[in-house]
Amino acid sequence: MLQTQRRERDRLLPADRRVRDIARDLYERVAYAPIISPHGHVPAGWLADDVKFQDPSALLVTHDHYVTRLLHSAGVDLAALGLGGHTADPREVWRLFASNWHLFTGTASGYWIHEALTDVLGVDRQLTADTADEVYDHIDALLKTPECRPRALFERFGIEVLATTDDPLDNLDAHARIASSGLHGRVLPTFRPDRYLNPESEGFVDSVSSLLDTTGRAASFSGYLNALRERRQHFIQHGAVSTDHGVEEPFTVDMDEREADLLFQEVLSGTATSEKKRAFLGHMILQMARMSVEDGLVMTLHAGVVRNHHTETFRRFGSDSGHDFPRSTDFVRGLRPLLERYGLERNFHLVLFAVDETVYSRELAPMASFYPSVYVGAPWWFLDAPDAMARFRSAVTESAGFSRGSGFIDDTRAFLSIPARHDTARRTDAGFLARLVAEGRIGITAAENIIDDIVGPQPKRVFKL
Amino acid sequence: MLQTQRRERDRLLPADRRVRDIARDLYERVAYAPIISPHGHVPAGWLADDVKFQDPSALLVTHDHYVTRLLHSAGVDLAALGLGGHTADPREVWRLFASNWHLFTGTASGYWIHEALTDVLGVDRQLTADTADEVYDHIDALLKTPECRPRALFERFGIEVLATTDDPLDNLDAHARIASSGLHGRVLPTFRPDRYLNPESEGFVDSVSSLLDTTGRAASFSGYLNALRERRQHFIQHGAVSTDHGVEEPFTVDMDEREADLLFQEVLSGTATSEKKRAFLGHMILQMARMSVEDGLVMTLHAGVVRNHHTETFRRFGSDSGHDFPRSTDFVRGLRPLLERYGLERNFHLVLFAVDETVYSRELAPMASFYPSVYVGAPWWFLDAPDAMARFRSAVTESAGFSRGSGFIDDTRAFLSIPARHDTARRTDAGFLARLVAEGRIGITAAENIIDDIVGPQPKRVFKL
Amino acid sequence: MLQTQRRERDRLLPADRRVRDIARDLYERVAYAPIISPHGHVPAGWLADDVKFQDPSALLVTHDHYVTRLLHSAGVDLAALGLGGHTADPREVWRLFASNWHLFTGTASGYWIHEALTDVLGVDRQLTADTADEVYDHIDALLKTPECRPRALFERFGIEVLATTDDPLDNLDAHARIASSGLHGRVLPTFRPDRYLNPESEGFVDSVSSLLDTTGRAASFSGYLNALRERRQHFIQHGAVSTDHGVEEPFTVDMDEREADLLFQEVLSGTATSEKKRAFLGHMILQMARMSVEDGLVMTLHAGVVRNHHTETFRRFGSDSGHDFPRSTDFVRGLRPLLERYGLERNFHLVLFAVDETVYSRELAPMASFYPSVYVGAPWWFLDAPDAMARFRSAVTESAGFSRGSGFIDDTRAFLSIPARHDTARRTDAGFLARLVAEGRIGITAAENIIDDIVGPQPKRVFKL
Repeated sequence: MLQTQRRERDRLLPADRRVRDIARDLYERVAYAPIISPHGHVPAGWLADDVKFQDPSALLVTHDHYVTRLLHSAGVDLAALGLGGHTADPREVWRLFASNWHLFTGTASGYWIHEALTDVLGVDRQLTADTADEVYDHIDALLKTPECRPRALFERFGIEVLATTDDPLDNLDAHARIASSGLHGRVLPTFRPDRYLNPESEGFVDSVSSLLDTTGRAASFSGYLNALRERRQHFIQHGAVSTDHGVEEPFTVDMDEREADLLFQEVLSGTATSEKKRAFLGHMILQMARMSVEDGLVMTLHAGVVRNHHTETFRRFGSDSGHDFPRSTDFVRGLRPLLERYGLERNFHLVLFAVDETVYSRELAPMASFYPSVYVGAPWWFLDAPDAMARFRSAVTESAGFSRGSGFIDDTRAFLSIPARHDTARRTDAGFLARLVAEGRIGITAAENIIDDIVGPQPKRVFKL
Repeated sequence: MLQTQRRERDRLLPADRRVRDIARDLYERVAYAPIISPHGHVPAGWLADDVKFQDPSALLVTHDHYVTRLLHSAGVDLAALGLGGHTADPREVWRLFASNWHLFTGTASGYWIHEALTDVLGVDRQLTADTADEVYDHIDALLKTPECRPRALFERFGIEVLATTDDPLDNLDAHARIASSGLHGRVLPTFRPDRYLNPESEGFVDSVSSLLDTTGRAASFSGYLNALRERRQHFIQHGAVSTDHGVEEPFTVDMDEREADLLFQEVLSGTATSEKKRAFLGHMILQMARMSVEDGLVMTLHAGVVRNHHTETFRRFGSDSGHDFPRSTDFVRGLRPLLERYGLERNFHLVLFAVDETVYSRELAPMASFYPSVYVGAPWWFLDAPDAMARFRSAVTESAGFSRGSGFIDDTRAFLSIPARHDTARRTDAGFLARLVAEGRIGITAAENIIDDIVGPQPKRVFKL
Repeated sequence: MLQTQRRERDRLLPADRRVRDIARDLYERVAYAPIISPHGHVPAGWLADDVKFQDPSALLVTHDHYVTRLLHSAGVDLAALGLGGHTADPREVWRLFASNWHLFTGTASGYWIHEALTDVLGVDRQLTADTADEVYDHIDALLKTPECRPRALFERFGIEVLATTDDPLDNLDAHARIASSGLHGRVLPTFRPDRYLNPESEGFVDSVSSLLDTTGRAASFSGYLNALRERRQHFIQHGAVSTDHGVEEPFTVDMDEREADLLFQEVLSGTATSEKKRAFLGHMILQMARMSVEDGLVMTLHAGVVRNHHTETFRRFGSDSGHDFPRSTDFVRGLRPLLERYGLERNFHLVLFAVDETVYSRELAPMASFYPSVYVGAPWWFLDAPDAMARFRSAVTESAGFSRGSGFIDDTRAFLSIPARHDTARRTDAGFLARLVAEGRIGITAAENIIDDIVGPQPKRVFKL
């Protein structure tokens, strides 16, 4: 049976006794505050249909590319984990995972999974090759109980808002069904149009054709823009509050409509150079900002990832198979055209997520502390872990304070890790604030106000919830 | 009446009790040492004429672009703060500031202003919307007393040396008047020729014309160089010890005189391409180094800031209106031509200031620990705050030790913040040194010698004071 | 006489008492574990011939460009230190060093030399201008004793494996003599072919000619490749386990054999452009990976250093005279061609060393936690010091854990500093792990397993020892 275990009291709090005492008090104010998750990748279908989780491996290993990535680095074939359509016995996958579990010591995934095992799944022993089967059976049995279905967990986790990420042509039926289902908490779609905007994405021309067909628009630039507008409205009607954009570079281009129309025809014809394709995407990011100004959807930009680094692995196992790597980025010059136009629009919220942490003190904090539209996204992907979160706060706070951040974003498909991730952010922030208090930099009341704000009111303001 | 309040004893010292005890002892050695401020932006006229500070908002809000920037990000119109020639009731400005004061919690500006309010202005209550008027009246009354005039504060702050930043065509009368006024302490001009060197700066051609006219030089490259030399002499005669250069890139170009002369004609004619303009500025930075070798003025280079990011704001409110942002920089390759020529000159001091903190361990510490001419400038602008200062020391010390730094530079126009800034640097350095002592890395005597040195003798050596 | 002094117990351990207690326990597990040094620059001849160290200055000052660099920055002429073939009285050099010894406070060199003086050489007083002669005489006398010869020290230091760095045409006689000499411990050559691969290196064409002559190969691309293969075999026969490559950029190029052959002829003819030369080197790095796949030699890549920044100093004093500086690097895109081809080869180990520390969290940890071939090299050169090591662990661990690192690499020619360097890494790692334990992130048993592993088994796995 599922145990409700209280979390280890002082997990992740600073070692210094005096700082820890302050941190614990701050943390306890928000330890069980509702979870606001305005950006993530949990499939809406899970919650609409209350789909039973398949097995322990599907739940914790196979679909988490942080996990498969590190196993792969240790010499595990992704096919043996069942990726890329390969068949793999879930129990064998679990044994592979268990016998490599020590590799995750000190990693973000190690933290999340440890928390999921102990706090959510009530596993009370170390995971090793020897205990693999026992733990597997324990979890597998649990997954058959109603308490372990997505909807029960959603409510048990105290999720108030959960955003999914969705294709612009999704009919959003799953969201409609959730909305009318009486679930305690909101599940919102997010408009993610990358493959309709980026001429370098696979099947771009077909994607644009589908978009135009679905909306009955002409194959002109204005038809294309209106098709996108229409689909955004569809998302808004289903509760969406934001759009999301994943780009290798935070690069934007302003141009007039005639020029854009010519470029549109060129990228559709397949004759465009790389430089032209880059310009087209750069212009479409700017157009997305323009539409956000019009319709009020918050715009989030996840920039700086070189995707599918190893082509053969991509061919065998598809995207998200663990070889997306960060590169250095230039938000200041790259976003200038966009911000020249829309940076001061009152209705416009632009949340910038980086994987090149050098931009926190150099670019994002300075920009967010001038432009009312710009918010610094929480540490993301490779930076989504306690030490990186602490470095983030240290890098951002002295320029931008606490008001210009997005609030914590879990950005995950690993459903069971959601509470652990939010808990980690809360503990890390409590530790950071406690140090400022202990060093006589800020008062305890200010620290209390800040931690109360950043777990709820702030992400609600930023994401217009 | 003005209160002399002793600073909070342990502000900014490390939380760990043992480290704090060591840090406190180190700090107390230098807590009240005279302030050496070899680079800053206080107008000389304030001290020459002992100009009364206008009102609390002019003193603490309107002219501080760190402050107006963060207010702007919270949705406050810069016009409502009285920027860009707009009229604003100072009391209303103060109310806006007070009601947003919580946004500054944890920021550098928050620290400086808190210190100015409590230690300099004797404000003994929290600044909020409710207390705004009361605090305003308290400060406003104080500003009418003789104790709150610039010269009284200058002496009360214990300033031994204060450098201003001045236009090359400034007659420096204000400095002459200060020199003969009996003020306790030196006020030195600094030669800042950006607008005469950078073809991209507004009114460049006119500026060069004025320079040539004022000095009666021919419109040739050698005439231009001699005009600059003459103005440097004028500055030296008025006590200047350094020149200052603000550039987007630390980029230098060596070329022969004939080539330089042609380029000079081209940039003056207005036909030069961006690339040519860049080369011209790059060459002039090298020429400034050459003149420093000749006349002994210390050369300081502030590199890496993209200025006036939002053109409309620049048009409405002018420069320094809060949208200057850092970019990544390359000192190693960019300064190579300059250092190939002058890097080993004994008389040459080149102080490098960065806003891209990645260069501290990668570029500046390595260069300064080879070139006798190169000094690592103290953390500047967005990095001028306790955590960033600690990161700076950590990044620089293990390669370059303590002897290759500039000493602390406040670089400010916010006169009231000067003591707080120097105090912060002293406390942060005491904390850093105390950790090294507590970790058994350096002895206490070495730590004492270092902190004694870096608050006075070191900046005096670097700036030839 | 040589004293065996026990190291200061808590040197470099964290100040917090609770963390320090844990750290001390962890450290003591490995404090005297054998030293595995799979990459370094000690000349094999020292150990083959048990060459007496010349004098204190030759031992600790003259040949250490970290030391001469900082002295140079303080105004000491490199000629006065005896560099570049200049004659200098070793006692005078030592006096110069002693009178500047305070400059090294807090630096990596300061730590190593302090340790060498106290723990290895039994110096029991502060080094100053006043004690310079006394200390010199003490060390000089010691250097004449058999206990201070390289082989005695090698065994006293507990070195199990020491790799040297060698020219591909070296006959490796010194290694052969060591191997048959009964020395306790292995001394392995390392294949370092930079000057045969990089068309920009001085004397490249002559180097390639020598290579072809020595091996009797034709002057074709395949002859050249086979010559390199043959020399690698020679190294393998003498115990080599790795090759080493020093490049300014981590840049690789894939091309077919015909294209490579044409390029080879072009770079040999001296007509190749910079771009072509860059491509050739980029391709040869890829070819080295290919050979590593074939013959099993571990490939190490040291990237990101701009060499010989000050040309006049290079002319007077040669390479390694203190003006090599880091630049920013791009491993993700630069190594993609190489990793596309060989990244998943089971037999292939690629160890990446960086001096641009921004790549640790952004590039190296992500890549090493996917590619089974990629290992994150320990902090190197300017980053080889306690604070930088701690930043490294913080940046790498949360993505890649502890299993994807190289283990500590001392990379030094400063023979006496070897124990101090390994000791520093062990203490720093103990401190890092202790913090994770104290913060409730990992268990003490996991921490113990990790520290036991990283000082021995891990570098042995990575370097196939």
